[in-house]
Amino acid sequence: MLAEIITIGDEILIGQIVDTNSAFIAKELNKIGVSVFQITSVQDDNAHIVKALGEARERVDVVIVTGGLGPTKDDVTKNAFCDFFQDTLVQNVEVLAHIEHLFANYISTPISDINRQQAWVPSKAEVLHNANGTAPGMWMQSNGVAFISLPGVPFEMKNLIKHQVIPMIAERYERPYILHRTLVTYGLGESAIAERIASWEEDLPPFLKLAYLPNLGKVRLRLTAKGADKKMLDEAIEQASEKLYPLIGDILYGTENEETLEEVVARLFTQKQRTLATAESFTGGKIAQQLTSIPGASAYFKGSVVSYATEAKIELLGVSREVIQKHSVVSAEVAKMMAENARNLLKTHFAVATTGNAGPTKGDSDAEIGTTYIGIATPEGAFAEKFNMGNHRERIVQKAVHKALELLQKEIIKI
Amino acid sequence: MLAEIITIGDEILIGQIVDTNSAFIAKELNKIGVSVFQITSVQDDNAHIVKALGEARERVDVVIVTGGLGPTKDDVTKNAFCDFFQDTLVQNVEVLAHIEHLFANYISTPISDINRQQAWVPSKAEVLHNANGTAPGMWMQSNGVAFISLPGVPFEMKNLIKHQVIPMIAERYERPYILHRTLVTYGLGESAIAERIASWEEDLPPFLKLAYLPNLGKVRLRLTAKGADKKMLDEAIEQASEKLYPLIGDILYGTENEETLEEVVARLFTQKQRTLATAESFTGGKIAQQLTSIPGASAYFKGSVVSYATEAKIELLGVSREVIQKHSVVSAEVAKMMAENARNLLKTHFAVATTGNAGPTKGDSDAEIGTTYIGIATPEGAFAEKFNMGNHRERIVQKAVHKALELLQKEIIKI
Repeated sequence: MLAEIITIGDEILIGQIVDTNSAFIAKELNKIGVSVFQITSVQDDNAHIVKALGEARERVDVVIVTGGLGPTKDDVTKNAFCDFFQDTLVQNVEVLAHIEHLFANYISTPISDINRQQAWVPSKAEVLHNANGTAPGMWMQSNGVAFISLPGVPFEMKNLIKHQVIPMIAERYERPYILHRTLVTYGLGESAIAERIASWEEDLPPFLKLAYLPNLGKVRLRLTAKGADKKMLDEAIEQASEKLYPLIGDILYGTENEETLEEVVARLFTQKQRTLATAESFTGGKIAQQLTSIPGASAYFKGSVVSYATEAKIELLGVSREVIQKHSVVSAEVAKMMAENARNLLKTHFAVATTGNAGPTKGDSDAEIGTTYIGIATPEGAFAEKFNMGNHRERIVQKAVHKALELLQKEIIKI
Repeated sequence: MLAEIITIGDEILIGQIVDTNSAFIAKELNKIGVSVFQITSVQDDNAHIVKALGEARERVDVVIVTGGLGPTKDDVTKNAFCDFFQDTLVQNVEVLAHIEHLFANYISTPISDINRQQAWVPSKAEVLHNANGTAPGMWMQSNGVAFISLPGVPFEMKNLIKHQVIPMIAERYERPYILHRTLVTYGLGESAIAERIASWEEDLPPFLKLAYLPNLGKVRLRLTAKGADKKMLDEAIEQASEKLYPLIGDILYGTENEETLEEVVARLFTQKQRTLATAESFTGGKIAQQLTSIPGASAYFKGSVVSYATEAKIELLGVSREVIQKHSVVSAEVAKMMAENARNLLKTHFAVATTGNAGPTKGDSDAEIGTTYIGIATPEGAFAEKFNMGNHRERIVQKAVHKALELLQKEIIKI
């Protein structure tokens, strides 16, 4: 059971936007046992789209197409579908009623003929209701291959995928199971790990695949099993993991599930009914932003003091000027005091603080670029740890945010 | 002059990562007049890669391949290149010396045979030095088409693109010019705009292309001109724009260049030597994070008070409890007071504040989900404006951050 995702839009091909739709769709398909064989991005061009549809038909069972369904002339997907399926557009009265309803209730511009034209769909298409927008989704068939066309606007597409496309595919196709297990290691490069586990890797059965995913100082080992017998796959992954653990026990950090690190932190703080504050220097609010990106953050997250300037650390956060002068603004002492003071100011159980230098210049301290201190304050006391995060600004901040959440997780899990 | 980007990696096809490399590469190619015809993502699979290379050879002049160059068994790009080019791997002594240098100086794990194998490259390949990593880039030719293989790690790939690939393509190929101009409109849907400018659009010369890009309540109109004569293209874009302005004068918001809104704000505050603080409620630090993502933010950005909880607004930011009780925590009065108090606490010229409800529940106020107040404090005084940002959590926050930066821009530009 293979799928191809075709994303349509010049804005992707000139690099004006990053295609985030494909990863979302791929993940959802994977959950129901559909493997994405290829992702193809093509221009808003009739001939190019028709060609891509034809090539995909040779490769896969289901083709999911996003984009090019807007009301304006640069959107040509529906015409390309008509050419490919030798079909013509007909007006769908239900879609028309939905468009008129949206315009009457939610859109300030008056409805026009161009908007009403969005109710025209290929006559052979099965229409998928787009609750969040005016462009309907469409399901068509050719030589036993399903072609599903969706709008490119992420929140319209996501709703259609979750509530229409996935249930329909699940109902209409027999699918294998695809199971993943990801083990997170820390402290050894991918090549060193590969040498260590070479004979274990050799012995893996053919339906088990291993991938090495290095990122932010960690190497994740992803085992993927694919087949019809879920119980057998579960057991095979379990057995392979059991044999792997003794080989990587010293570097094994944990297993990874669908949860992101910030989701784990959110879940633990909420479950354990503890509250959190952050005091951020060079991470500039990114820890707070990641935590508050998860619905329900108000249950445990009280706020943050983003003290970017040294003066803000002193005046807003009450870090002592003497401590800064004695130890430098990028120091364990300052990180610890930032965490303690944020915890007191915001009256929380826990606080995490960052101070460091992300470059490109050295700023208010003599610390090398990449030097990072993370302070943690808990009901039991406070401490700070030092890290070196390399010399690439964006990565330094990313790594520091990741490490701060990791240290928080380690503390909250003890409660 | 056409290019294809092929990204290799199972992690893309199972949706574990979003492919951000392609947008970066497409943008850089565009700047030197190379159009990306297609982007294709394929699995870490020899046969699939070879097939994709062959198909791309029929479509374009330059193929840029990323990923699959790691030292472990799941990385098969080099072998696929050997199959495709009927070549064999040979050891490159310069790459070997570079790998040994990196291990001796920057990598804590001892070097192993697997690492040294990364110095083996196809014998016909021209090697591109990867300053940031152990996997070299490669340039190969087949039937007059260039195939360039790069590592998938973004910061290694970006460095290779900027300092090697782009200069080499620029030197080796004659290229047309590709010019873009994007006009930003506000207040009218894309279909209404399309109707209004229909006859203007009809009259565009064939080398000028128009695209409608709706996002966050705005519609951007992108004009793209492509051809050999830069002066003529410049003039054609200018003339078309001049004819367009009178048709959309009432909704025209500005022209867009490569600068993002946060970059514009950063530039204006730095140029005008004014300082800024933020007080963020439901935006949770995202404004601060976006501003500090730009190097040099310390020149004007002092810090932020992220007062997510109502208590934090009172205790940390000094918003009056009476005002909150009288007007609700989501109100113009609170937004204004948050901005004023942040400005005073952080001793800055300007401050921007947000309070609102991003859902999914109503939280500490009765405000409808999507209700947003943005407060601005300047040396001249303070004010707040009300907005409704829809009902989709992620988009509400995005729109609020965007609007906050927009209001700031409007104020700082007056100085």
